[in-house]
Amino acid sequence: MNAQSNTKAFDPPAPRVPSDRLDVWSIVNEAAAVSPIQPIVNLGQGFFGFNPPQFAIDAAKEALNRVDCNQCAPTKGRPSLRKAIASAYSNHLERPIDEGSEVVITSGANEAFICPGDEVVTFEPFFDQYRSGIELAGGIPRYVPLHPPKDSNRTISSASEWTVDFEELEKAINKNTKMIILNTPHNPVGKVFTEPELQRIGDICLKHDLLILSDEVYDHLYYVPFTRIATLSPDLYNHTLTVASAGKAFHATGWRIGYLIGPQPLIKNVSAIHTRICYSSVSPLQEAVAVAFEKADENGFWEHSRQEMKGKLRLFCEVFEALGLPYTEPEGGYFVLVNLSRVQIPSDYSFPAHIEQRRRDFKLCWFLIQEIGVAAIPPSEFYSDDHAHIGEDFLRFAFCKEDEVLEMGKQRLLKLKRYIV
Amino acid sequence: MNAQSNTKAFDPPAPRVPSDRLDVWSIVNEAAAVSPIQPIVNLGQGFFGFNPPQFAIDAAKEALNRVDCNQCAPTKGRPSLRKAIASAYSNHLERPIDEGSEVVITSGANEAFICPGDEVVTFEPFFDQYRSGIELAGGIPRYVPLHPPKDSNRTISSASEWTVDFEELEKAINKNTKMIILNTPHNPVGKVFTEPELQRIGDICLKHDLLILSDEVYDHLYYVPFTRIATLSPDLYNHTLTVASAGKAFHATGWRIGYLIGPQPLIKNVSAIHTRICYSSVSPLQEAVAVAFEKADENGFWEHSRQEMKGKLRLFCEVFEALGLPYTEPEGGYFVLVNLSRVQIPSDYSFPAHIEQRRRDFKLCWFLIQEIGVAAIPPSEFYSDDHAHIGEDFLRFAFCKEDEVLEMGKQRLLKLKRYIV
Repeated sequence: MNAQSNTKAFDPPAPRVPSDRLDVWSIVNEAAAVSPIQPIVNLGQGFFGFNPPQFAIDAAKEALNRVDCNQCAPTKGRPSLRKAIASAYSNHLERPIDEGSEVVITSGANEAFICPGDEVVTFEPFFDQYRSGIELAGGIPRYVPLHPPKDSNRTISSASEWTVDFEELEKAINKNTKMIILNTPHNPVGKVFTEPELQRIGDICLKHDLLILSDEVYDHLYYVPFTRIATLSPDLYNHTLTVASAGKAFHATGWRIGYLIGPQPLIKNVSAIHTRICYSSVSPLQEAVAVAFEKADENGFWEHSRQEMKGKLRLFCEVFEALGLPYTEPEGGYFVLVNLSRVQIPSDYSFPAHIEQRRRDFKLCWFLIQEIGVAAIPPSEFYSDDHAHIGEDFLRFAFCKEDEVLEMGKQRLLKLKRYIV
Repeated sequence: MNAQSNTKAFDPPAPRVPSDRLDVWSIVNEAAAVSPIQPIVNLGQGFFGFNPPQFAIDAAKEALNRVDCNQCAPTKGRPSLRKAIASAYSNHLERPIDEGSEVVITSGANEAFICPGDEVVTFEPFFDQYRSGIELAGGIPRYVPLHPPKDSNRTISSASEWTVDFEELEKAINKNTKMIILNTPHNPVGKVFTEPELQRIGDICLKHDLLILSDEVYDHLYYVPFTRIATLSPDLYNHTLTVASAGKAFHATGWRIGYLIGPQPLIKNVSAIHTRICYSSVSPLQEAVAVAFEKADENGFWEHSRQEMKGKLRLFCEVFEALGLPYTEPEGGYFVLVNLSRVQIPSDYSFPAHIEQRRRDFKLCWFLIQEIGVAAIPPSEFYSDDHAHIGEDFLRFAFCKEDEVLEMGKQRLLKLKRYIV
């Protein structure tokens, strides 16, 4: 019997296993690996180019000395961390959060998206894991685009000018709609939804009785006033799961500690699923995050980290001003969307087949990696096919990197000058 | 509008969300918390009562100093760890394992069980996460009991005497069967399947073209010769996903680092699902495990850890010999199944409702916690309803604890004397 053919083991996998089509992260990382310019200045993925604060690292090392911290945490998370989060988010959500029933610790914020549901509405562009999370759960995603300002190809604009068409939103909802996914501060646009916007979205959700999954993983990095939808009314709190992430908060994306906060009936179900999928989350780093929450408040870490990131934003965007390339000024997070419609790729430039068949932003991405030595992310990947054209002139740059790396990126990007018409 | 009633948010969850029925872990932990005897000697859950080896802790602290180790690992795992595992398992599996395509790092070994499949055969008693993993994936579990030796209620027996009825196994397989789950060394029986047993199981799997998920998380703790089914033939390798766990190997169940090894076509699908569920696994501890694998070989850690655990087994089982309670001598792992049919609970003893309705082993468990101050796990939870009676006279004790804790447990267990008839 030949195991390599005609056997169940090698059947096509279940439909929920993602297809072979290369995802954007693989495309960018593999292109970066073969670029003639090495090392690449990688401003693609949003991991930090610097370490978590020393107090968080110290807390992790302390935890590694403790027997209980090295063994399985309770499935809902270590009590110390649930307490720290309940305390912090009682402030953020402007109501007392019960650490026992309204908080659950997950493995990275991703897992949280595995929720029961039929149709799920998400705004475009979207963090690509939403789509697969919905589909893995057997749901059907429905997309509503954020509309960029008309002149985003000519002048610097604000992320606040990317707007929701509320009629489109209403049209995307039907009797099968179970949930809406919000993301504020938004990746990749950098938009912080305003209170009136959230109120209108919230009213629509209540009218149609929708669950709200509010992805607020950049909730400590906002440069304009930041509102959480769960604070707008008790009814909205009761319909909302707020998702946040220690990896984003403490510059430690590799620690894989996320958390969900919400009303007890919703948290109960998320917690049951989490137990079955991952059982529990990494224990010593949970303890470290619990301590880090305390220390962060004591030493003004949040304000410091916001100021630092704003400084990096200003530093990095100088180069786009120098090049005359319009960008979207983010109101939060650490990504900047730059419009490269003025960049002209030589007409005889040749691309590998898997890039050739994709939209212009993938070509821009490949061109920058090969010719300039800077990696960024093509955002058309974060759209449904119907709306992918909206993203095809943009690239997303992550500026959560060391200043020296940003400076080197800027120097390289200046070489774009001769391709700009 | 009253969000607490009649809204989708509070609908019954999707069928894949586990029901409200308390799981065995919650029952035991909650019973332990209210016991009049405090602190409880908790020999229930199989977490270690001592720390990982110092070299592993040191490696974790080192990794926490490194920027790259604190940020997101590649979804398939850090190259250093994949290399360490490929190297170790090239020996264990007696064939060259390709670190790029035949290894994937997961978040604890649990997540690995989320595999596509229709009917899945598992032996009873089973690790309870198998059932929920199968059901979460939409599969149907089929159970085949391991049969205890006839006199397990009268004399000490060996885990090797728990046997498979191969006719029963064949009968559990039909055209919808996709996969079989093996577990060796076995939890909770402690059985290490022999080569002839694995060969017969393997032949049946090949005949019916079944995938094999071989859960070998206790693969460094065996006290008799240990065979891996994937080594029996190239065909069997091609049908097998081998699952193992750094948490078990390095006494660090809270680190949540598991790995799967298998042929490229199977690993490819597991890896795709892992990316979508958890994205990647905890990065600094992956690095620590990579280093720990090296150091473990250098300093004879594996042999040391086996000897240490065997010593604990001997130390702990003395009490059952003193009490005249027959137990199943484990061939691997760190659990011992003890037969308590001779323990007579006073006829007027009263149990809370959620215990009253369960089998005798739950009552024994409750009784020991309340009256003796020792927690153990009732194994009928690890059986389907049809076969749960097989487990109802046993309790599972974890002996992966500090010697002082085992000694205290023994002293308390001696108090059982007056209930033994």
